Parts: sequence; structure tokens; C-alpha cells
Amino acid sequence: MESVEKECGALGGLFQAIVNDMKSSYPVWEDFSAKATKLHSQLRTTILAAVAFLDAFQKVADMATNSRGATRDIGSALTRMCMRHRSIEGKLRHFTNALMEGLVTPLQDRLEEWKKTANLLDKDHAKEYKRSRQEIKRKSLDTVKLQKKARKGRGNLRPQLDSAMQDVSDLYLLMEETEKQAVRRALLEERSRYCSFITLLQSVVTVEIAMLGEITHLQPIVDDLTGLTEDPHKLPPASEQVIRDLKGSDYSWSYQTPPPPPAAPTPGRAACAASSRCPLQEPIGSAVCPPTTLALSPRMPTPTPSLRRPCHLISPARNQQAQPPLRLQKPASLSASAALLRRTGPN
Amino acid sequence: MESVEKECGALGGLFQAIVNDMKSSYPVWEDFSAKATKLHSQLRTTILAAVAFLDAFQKVADMATNSRGATRDIGSALTRMCMRHRSIEGKLRHFTNALMEGLVTPLQDRLEEWKKTANLLDKDHAKEYKRSRQEIKRKSLDTVKLQKKARKGRGNLRPQLDSAMQDVSDLYLLMEETEKQAVRRALLEERSRYCSFITLLQSVVTVEIAMLGEITHLQPIVDDLTGLTEDPHKLPPASEQVIRDLKGSDYSWSYQTPPPPPAAPTPGRAACAASSRCPLQEPIGSAVCPPTTLALSPRMPTPTPSLRRPCHLISPARNQQAQPPLRLQKPASLSASAALLRRTGPN
Repeated sequence: MESVEKECGALGGLFQAIVNDMKSSYPVWEDFSAKATKLHSQLRTTILAAVAFLDAFQKVADMATNSRGATRDIGSALTRMCMRHRSIEGKLRHFTNALMEGLVTPLQDRLEEWKKTANLLDKDHAKEYKRSRQEIKRKSLDTVKLQKKARKGRGNLRPQLDSAMQDVSDLYLLMEETEKQAVRRALLEERSRYCSFITLLQSVVTVEIAMLGEITHLQPIVDDLTGLTEDPHKLPPASEQVIRDLKGSDYSWSYQTPPPPPAAPTPGRAACAASSRCPLQEPIGSAVCPPTTLALSPRMPTPTPSLRRPCHLISPARNQQAQPPLRLQKPASLSASAALLRRTGPN
Repeated sequence: MESVEKECGALGGLFQAIVNDMKSSYPVWEDFSAKATKLHSQLRTTILAAVAFLDAFQKVADMATNSRGATRDIGSALTRMCMRHRSIEGKLRHFTNALMEGLVTPLQDRLEEWKKTANLLDKDHAKEYKRSRQEIKRKSLDTVKLQKKARKGRGNLRPQLDSAMQDVSDLYLLMEETEKQAVRRALLEERSRYCSFITLLQSVVTVEIAMLGEITHLQPIVDDLTGLTEDPHKLPPASEQVIRDLKGSDYSWSYQTPPPPPAAPTPGRAACAASSRCPLQEPIGSAVCPPTTLALSPRMPTPTPSLRRPCHLISPARNQQAQPPLRLQKPASLSASAALLRRTGPN
């Protein structure tokens, strides 16, 4: 009998230990939640920096695309590289949202539920344990009284005493079973917390894994770029075509040797100095004609000279009319062609 | 003759346009460099947030691992998930460094070289063009003089005149070839810039792709976690073993029903209230015995109850000696076991 009593106490102690574990776990969950929130806000600012970086990257790609025949193929591959990274950035954005909306916010809601459930488990168990103990105590007292009566020899109390002792024994066994059930409930509650957590976590990791699909597309573009740039000292056919085409054109270009500069420009001011002393008048067509054929086939590895003939060669030569240089309009046309490329998508 | 002269002018104009493109490109490269630097510094702070997040994540995993039989399998899988993310974080760190050291810093050095080279190309071309023009002018003047002399009928100057005109023609053809070479040099210089850029870029993208290798390892862990938590309402065999083992043990646990609390604890203070009113005295062994078998086989999907028997069941029961509860020592043992797991590595 004493052993069952001890076992009930041990089961009760185990139950309490599990419940206490759960109760002492809140700072750990809250710390997790706080650190995930911090990571989320960091990822958000990183995404903004990535967007700005990719815009700058696209400008480099546009510059290569809008060059005079030597780097259009490279520009096209760089544009694809940039667009793939925009997709990765989109997935990162998705992941960042999932971290907050799929994990942190629902976890905080669960935490409140968990606190209530653990308190209720604890309270119910204490009440039930106390009730069982009191019932056993009362029955035991009855048994002791009967034993005293029996010792005084008043009538045959043996069957009554046996029945009372059996009752106490049954109550102990019932209590043991009740305590085992309480331990199981506590273990299940503890485990179900992790199950909930993992369900939330999985939704985030699934989005994280989806970023992988985007990264796998980078390798072919890296290979393209490697192939295109493996010999920096060799011009592509498109470049020679630009020179050849010039012969048949109506000479829309002209050149006058620059007058001697007023002072030797310092290296830092070289670009400004160059643009102010440059006597070149650029034909109008080259600045405003978007490379439409390129936009329709951004994956084409080598440019077809007949289609990609620089715009200025098929545009009317107007430089004799002393038009102001249109260099300032170039960024607008660049972004227009970039927008066209973006609409086409990385295919 | 006039057509060759015009073509030389057109080639000179094309050369100048290419050089001007290069000179006007610096703001684009500098913007790229600035945005990459910004992204780099954002990534660095994100990595710090990720490290803090993973530390908090590991604490959740440790909590599951150190539970009383119901969630050790889950804790082991969560630890693997955490360690994989530490590898991803390591790769992200590598990528972040590569962005700065492999791309931004060398690009800034190149930018200075590019400025010098473009200025030199421009200067050399202008000098050469002027020299050629002057030589042609001088020769043409000679021809005009000879023509005047010939018109005045002084002797037979025909062979001399033909030779002089041939010289002018040769000089024009030479100048045309020189101008073509200048255009090629400019195109090559422009293209070589992108080749340099792409070489730098590739080193970064290669590291980026290497992150992929880490992400692919996440799926098996997600699958493990899904399997382990698919039925939150069913206890694993290890949990039942804890209850069974209690019977054969020396009853190191005890439980007394708590005295009625002085006031109903508010939900917010539930955890503190619970720990202060808890009469449980935990046996010493359970807090200080690290789960060594788990550390040696973190991939083992289901715990073997005989090996993973909770520490307190094989430790001497000392709670009768009224030792103070050792709950405060638990974090130390948690981090020790976590360190052990980390040393073992995700295998």
C-alpha cells in the first residue's frame, strides 16, 4: 500500500516537473519571438538595399546593352542576371513576410493559449490530487476505526474491515491511474506546443527553400557571361560590323580635333572636362531609338549584326543642322528599354 | 578623295562617341559601387540579427531535447535545422565579404585605371588625328603648288604631280586605317571594362550559388519534422517509458498538494507565481546529466528508451535531504549539451 502511495506521489511530482518546465519556457519562446522580429525588420531594410542595388545593377546592364556594338551581348546577359536577382529578392520578400505573419505573430497568440492551458492543467491536477488524497484519508480513517472496533472484539467485523481495506486499495489504484493520465496530459500538452511551433516553422522554411529554385537559374547565366568575356582582347563580330556599316552610311558622324584645353584637367574632373571640350555632335537617332530587337530576344547569345545595327546608322543624319547634343535624353531612353526588358521577363 | 576624308571624320566621330560613353559612365559605376556598399553593410547587420535569432532557436531546440521524454526526437531534429541554418549564415557571411572584397573594392580601383586609360586614349587619338590632318594638309598644299606650276607650263611636272597626289591619297588611306584602329582600341577598352566587371561579379555569384548547397539540406529535416509531429495527440514510446520507468525507480519524485495561493495569480504573472508556490523538489541528477547518447547520434529518428532513460531515474534520490531545487543550474547544462551537439556537427 505504501509503495502505491509513493508512486502516486512520484507521478504527481513528475506531472509538476513537466508543468513547471512548460511554465519556465515562456522566456525562451518570448526571446525567440523577439529575435525573429528583429531579424524580420533587418531583412526588410536589407530588401530595400537590395532593390536599390539591383536598380544600379540594371543601369550597368543598360549601359552595356546601349553601347556601340561591343558589349550588347554582355548587356543582355547582365540584364538576365539582374532579373533573376529581382526574382530572388521577391522570394526573400515573401520569406520575410512569412517569418512575421506565418511564425512570430501566430506564435505570440499560441503563447497566450499555452499559458492558460498550463495553468488550468496545474489547477485541475492539484484539485483532483487533493480530492483523491482526502477521500483515501477518510476511507483509511474508517478502516482504522473498524480495526479498533475489531480489536475490542465487538461482533464479527472482519467482512466489513476487508471491504473497507479493499476500498482504500481501490482508491489508491484509481489515484495512480488518474495521476498517470495527468502525466500523459502534461506530456501531450508539452509535445503539442512543439508540434504547433513546427507547423508554423515549416511554412517559413518552405518559402525559404523556394528561394533555391531561383538560385539554380543563376548558374547558366554565369556560364553565358564566362563564355562572352573569356577573351577581353577580341572584339565580337558586331563591333567590326559597326565599323563596316559606317562605310556605307551617309557619314552622320563628324570629328574635329579639339582645341588645346585651357588647363590640364585633373584626373578627378576628367569626365566633366571631356564633355565640355568635346566637339562631337551626336546624331539624334542614336539616343532615342530603343533596342527593340534585343528586348524581344534577350537570350540570343550573339548579336545578329543586320538586326542590331546601331540606331544612328539607319537614322537620318541631322548633325549638319547643329542640333544640341542629346546626351541628356539618354537616361530616359535607357529606362524605357529597361522597362521593356522587364516586361518581357527572364525567359 | 572627299569620301575618304569624310569617312576619316566619321571614324573619328565614332571614336569620340565611344570615349565619351566611357567617360559619362563613371556616375553609373560609382552609383553601383555605393549601392553595393550599402547592401553590404545591411547584410552585415542582418547576419548579426540572424546569429541572435539562431541562438534563440537553439534554445528552443535544447528545451525540446531536455524535456522529459516527449519531445527529444523533435529537439534533435530542431537542432539539426538550427545547425543547417548556421551553415547558411556562414555562407551568407562569406557572400557578404565577397561582395565588398571581391567586387566593390577592386571595382573602385579599376575605376581609377579606367579614367586614366580613357583620358590617355582620347589624348593620343586627338594628337594622332591632328598630326595626320596636318601632314595631309601640307602634302595637299604641295600638290596645289605643283598644279599651279603645271598650269603655268613650266617643264613636265606631270610625274611629280602624280606622285604628290598619290602621296595624299596614301596618307588618307593610312589615316583611315589609323582611325579604324583607334575605334577598335576604344571598343576593346569599353568591352574590357565589362569583362573585368564580370570577372569580379562571378566571384560573388559563385559564393551566392554555394548557399544553394546548404538550402538543399533543409528539405530532409523538414520531412523529419513533419513525420515526427504529424500526430500531436499521440505520445511517442519514450514518453510511456518515462512513466513505466518511474515504477521501478526509487521514487526520487515527490508531490505535495500546493497550499491555497494567497491571491488568484493574474495570467501575466502565472509563471512566477507557479514557481514560487511549487512544492516540488527536483532530484539533482536530472539537471546536470547531459544527454550524451543523443549528442553522439543526433540523426537517430526515435529515441531508444533504454539508453535515453531520463537522467533523474538513474541518479541517486536526494530530495529527502532537502536540497535546494537546481533549476538555476539548468541553462549551464543546456549550453554544455548544445556545445557538444555543435561540435558533433550536422551529419
